[in-house]
Amino acid sequence: MKILIKNIGLMQDGKVTEHKNIAVEDKYIKEFPENPKEEEYDEIIEGHDMLAMPGLVNTHTHVAMTLFRSYADDMALMDWLQNKIWPAEDHLDDDIVYWGSTLAFAEMIRGGTTSFCDMYMFMDACARAADKAGIRGNLARGLAGIGPNGQKGIDENVELYKNWNGAGDGRFKVMMGPHAPYTCPPDYIRKVRDVAEKYDMPIHIHLSETKGEVENCEKEYHMTPIALMDSLGLFERPTLAAHCVHVTDDDIRIMKEKHVCAAHNPASNLKLASGIAPVPKMRKAGITVGIGTDGASSNNKLDMFAEMRLTALIHKAANYDPFAITAKEAVDMATKDGAKCLGYDNLGELKEGFLADIILVDRTGFHWKPRFDSVSLAVYAGNSMDVDTVIINGRPVMEHKELLTIDTEKMDAEVKRVTEKLYAFTKK
Amino acid sequence: MKILIKNIGLMQDGKVTEHKNIAVEDKYIKEFPENPKEEEYDEIIEGHDMLAMPGLVNTHTHVAMTLFRSYADDMALMDWLQNKIWPAEDHLDDDIVYWGSTLAFAEMIRGGTTSFCDMYMFMDACARAADKAGIRGNLARGLAGIGPNGQKGIDENVELYKNWNGAGDGRFKVMMGPHAPYTCPPDYIRKVRDVAEKYDMPIHIHLSETKGEVENCEKEYHMTPIALMDSLGLFERPTLAAHCVHVTDDDIRIMKEKHVCAAHNPASNLKLASGIAPVPKMRKAGITVGIGTDGASSNNKLDMFAEMRLTALIHKAANYDPFAITAKEAVDMATKDGAKCLGYDNLGELKEGFLADIILVDRTGFHWKPRFDSVSLAVYAGNSMDVDTVIINGRPVMEHKELLTIDTEKMDAEVKRVTEKLYAFTKK
Repeated sequence: MKILIKNIGLMQDGKVTEHKNIAVEDKYIKEFPENPKEEEYDEIIEGHDMLAMPGLVNTHTHVAMTLFRSYADDMALMDWLQNKIWPAEDHLDDDIVYWGSTLAFAEMIRGGTTSFCDMYMFMDACARAADKAGIRGNLARGLAGIGPNGQKGIDENVELYKNWNGAGDGRFKVMMGPHAPYTCPPDYIRKVRDVAEKYDMPIHIHLSETKGEVENCEKEYHMTPIALMDSLGLFERPTLAAHCVHVTDDDIRIMKEKHVCAAHNPASNLKLASGIAPVPKMRKAGITVGIGTDGASSNNKLDMFAEMRLTALIHKAANYDPFAITAKEAVDMATKDGAKCLGYDNLGELKEGFLADIILVDRTGFHWKPRFDSVSLAVYAGNSMDVDTVIINGRPVMEHKELLTIDTEKMDAEVKRVTEKLYAFTKK
Repeated sequence: MKILIKNIGLMQDGKVTEHKNIAVEDKYIKEFPENPKEEEYDEIIEGHDMLAMPGLVNTHTHVAMTLFRSYADDMALMDWLQNKIWPAEDHLDDDIVYWGSTLAFAEMIRGGTTSFCDMYMFMDACARAADKAGIRGNLARGLAGIGPNGQKGIDENVELYKNWNGAGDGRFKVMMGPHAPYTCPPDYIRKVRDVAEKYDMPIHIHLSETKGEVENCEKEYHMTPIALMDSLGLFERPTLAAHCVHVTDDDIRIMKEKHVCAAHNPASNLKLASGIAPVPKMRKAGITVGIGTDGASSNNKLDMFAEMRLTALIHKAANYDPFAITAKEAVDMATKDGAKCLGYDNLGELKEGFLADIILVDRTGFHWKPRFDSVSLAVYAGNSMDVDTVIINGRPVMEHKELLTIDTEKMDAEVKRVTEKLYAFTKK
């Protein structure tokens, strides 16, 4: 399929050039023709007053947790987990995860997110929902080595790999998802590492999210979580570490040496009172840092425009430095750096030959006026609801704010049904 | 005029009750009838799937600065002021401020803001634009005692008071706007205080916004800015102090004793790398803290939903306390506490006899599902673009996302015209 996007503001390398054209062929950005012949294209998209950006990459989330949105907020972490989230998670099944994931994908596409990186349960259902939605995603089975299901989780992760890695015309990659050092003892981490090695799977793990986690790890192992994982050889696999809020200079050195990428989740880290990750420091050290929403239950939305803005704002104040993370850097983190976190070297920029994940952002809203600098506006003033059209892997999945791959009426009914099913236990 | 809002989710005291009705008569909320007779009303608004909230109160802004939006971002404060903002401000006039303000009011109403508190120049033009837009506002002439225009500013502020205080069917109040201790020497502050006393005007001032401001003040006067203003008797007038980022325990004690209200501007304080104000501490001490956007040039939007969310998020991490500011508290700050900052005792809550500033928020978006707790959703997941209908002083100013008081096509043309006029000097 050949698509021409006409007369658009084109964001490249932190700059926007107006009145450009983008030619998409099959999965790829083919070129930026000066004088395109419209008759050569299957579809023409008029870009007047719109901004073309690379699709946003959500580097850390648990999509099915949308069904926990607003179920339990403003609680202390352990009370929240033990009395609300874990009991509810016991009642998840394929059907529930499928529709919870579909709701998440609808929200993500609606807001310009074209790739996600997930770690959760019932991942086959998540993958089927993602395939239907047309979104790009990295999938991992969340693995806990404490409790009886350690090996079962690993087996499911391998099964997921066999069924989904490279599927969906290359939209899916499968990672292994050891949950965190505090749920995965050293022997289990070693086992995960060996299986990941065997199948050539990268790793997606939570690391150094809270002060307490780091303190407990140091008490038990006399090492930080990152040093511990390094000592166990986990970082011999390409690793994406979510959070990295409480990292030492030595942790940062290890991450840099072992090419560990970080997924920064500003809203979740703020909401759960975890703290503010030293993102400028990590970036300065040469670590690739993407941005994520985490699950909707600790956010409560899957809105990468909101996360980009938070990323550009909070580090300035935390470091008393107005240049800490600029608007351009926030866009880079949400696009090309995020793509690197997911293992791509041809995604996250509007460049010839790159994968065609493109979002068109409507700039007619009052908050876009006057329009001196569209990069700055996208980050500081932009709104996920400005997104008009979304193309993933060369295929339009939303046009003029209408989802093309998800029947939202049916989804609404199914979400209502599975929500009732999921929470039936609370009524007993 | 009698308006009936039917079948709505009604937010009161941090809780939402579904399927309620609101009867508005003239400027006021008359009652919440169980079985209203529709024929008794001039207008019926169907509230199905919507949430009625008190209109949001933006307690600190400089509305005409919308015209500086995205003109200069990611700069150091003094470079930004000296080389960008001040030279541009030299070219403002009535015409430019009128349309810059109109653009701000369009954006504010569109996002559910029904009251604003402004301090700037050419305030008569701002007031005329606000009157036309139908928004509620407190107006102050920004006053600087250094430079030749100290007395002229005071005279203009008095003139503004005579022309606009109580005007617009009670929608406008006029305050005096001494800019800040570093631009208003002690003698000038005393003069302002005396004039404010004479006309019974409250005060709107910037206080303790940056570390540097506090340090310089302590060097020069051996007092914090707040202690200095107290020593000059300024706080004998009702005072709204914007920012209060760097306040001591003693400052907080003075503010409490003198009933000084604070306007918290989270996005601006983050973006300008000023820091994070000790809001939970101030609230615990009994200080009334509202929320503001500051000007669009340091934000870059006038979006009180974004500010509510920031307020609920950043203080949790800054204090490692997941309860620091709850969703309910963020709503209170953005509504009833904000109304108190503006000098109202009958605004900011959906209560019988209160002024009818009401917003209806569309809850059909994906980010509102599932809907366990609409207060939590409004703060953590809500989006200014969810606002469907806005009533101010009993009068609909936006219905189904269409502005009723502003001709947006004309505004767009005029904003384009005045933007060109304002920046003509950069082309010389």
